[in-house]
Amino acid sequence: MRTKQRVKWDLDPNRTALIIINMQKAFCEPDGALYVRNTEHIIDNIRSVSDTARKAGMPVVYLRHKVRGDGDSNRMNDMYPKVVDLLRRRTIDSEIIDELAPKPEDIIINKLFYSGFHFTDLDTILRSRDVDTLIVCGTATNVCCEATVRDAVHKEYKAIVLSDANAAADYPDMGWGAVSAEEIQRLSLTAIAYEFGQVSSTMEIVGEIETNISEGFASFHSA
Amino acid sequence: MRTKQRVKWDLDPNRTALIIINMQKAFCEPDGALYVRNTEHIIDNIRSVSDTARKAGMPVVYLRHKVRGDGDSNRMNDMYPKVVDLLRRRTIDSEIIDELAPKPEDIIINKLFYSGFHFTDLDTILRSRDVDTLIVCGTATNVCCEATVRDAVHKEYKAIVLSDANAAADYPDMGWGAVSAEEIQRLSLTAIAYEFGQVSSTMEIVGEIETNISEGFASFHSA
Repeated sequence: MRTKQRVKWDLDPNRTALIIINMQKAFCEPDGALYVRNTEHIIDNIRSVSDTARKAGMPVVYLRHKVRGDGDSNRMNDMYPKVVDLLRRRTIDSEIIDELAPKPEDIIINKLFYSGFHFTDLDTILRSRDVDTLIVCGTATNVCCEATVRDAVHKEYKAIVLSDANAAADYPDMGWGAVSAEEIQRLSLTAIAYEFGQVSSTMEIVGEIETNISEGFASFHSA
Repeated sequence: MRTKQRVKWDLDPNRTALIIINMQKAFCEPDGALYVRNTEHIIDNIRSVSDTARKAGMPVVYLRHKVRGDGDSNRMNDMYPKVVDLLRRRTIDSEIIDELAPKPEDIIINKLFYSGFHFTDLDTILRSRDVDTLIVCGTATNVCCEATVRDAVHKEYKAIVLSDANAAADYPDMGWGAVSAEEIQRLSLTAIAYEFGQVSSTMEIVGEIETNISEGFASFHSA
């Protein structure tokens, strides 16, 4: 069996952004059409890391899956035939949940597909702020979060995935047996840690940001 | 629990390409530095589908992970610190295995990272041939194959992943317990079938290509 050390980067708050993915009512509220039950366990962690990120002067970027509703992507429609209704622009269901309501200084990006980089200006927003490290949280771990992480690593960003602030969904039997959200979470985190980037707990990263601020890492922002 | 029908597209051989990923000595030979043991079980299926694809006049595209060796990607080096040695251009280890040696009419693309679309002309090659459907095989199922599939679906291709012609690797314990290649395979196929495209057996797709040729679907090529 191959072994591998987990990656651990220095976290410079001046060059790090927080990316919050799909924390919309459709995914996070029990009556939401695309409800992911484990989102209820990550809301407090996302609030904690976003509060800390704002204090550190880090960009806080919300990604919302919102489709125009004119048909949009043929492939998305193949996989989610009702997507044009479920995540249509200007619907309440496609808004961020109240518990994590964006602050005026936050950046909100609409995306049409799984990846946050797909035909959005996310890359430009990050480069213009000299960001090279992303802290990633939201839902679903192995779909939109992992798609954004995979694109990020291909674009040379250091991705830090929060193990307890990303929520996976259950899968029904698609031909190889049903798979629980917990199994998906375990395998997605394992693959990310092996192939794509750093995986850490929210507490660890919040602590590291606070330490680095107090040690002057964030002197650029406080200057 | 959500349920979902598996996607099944009509396969038009005139608009379909076969994509063979990373079937290089480093991944497929027992003494290879990045050996994936389950590759031995997919070689016959890849030979079968590539023979059929060539007979149908479909493009057969080989993707090889080959790095320049000058440092290349910082992130790839973070995750695979020896990659510049292991997959360097012009080494025997980075060549396609003899059992699946490309034919003169096949297309061979070198890639620097996981996805076959990342800074390669794969998209142009496919568009110039009016291809809208990809049959994907190779290794590793959840890494380079799934990265290529995720990029493909974002680019509006219909991806057909061969369940028994993609091989996953075992993962050691990265913090959440070891995961066997068989578990990875099961979850990756489930997620692909739910989120990204069609999953079918090699025999099913070979049969469909042969039927569609005999029924004149491939009349453009035989004209």
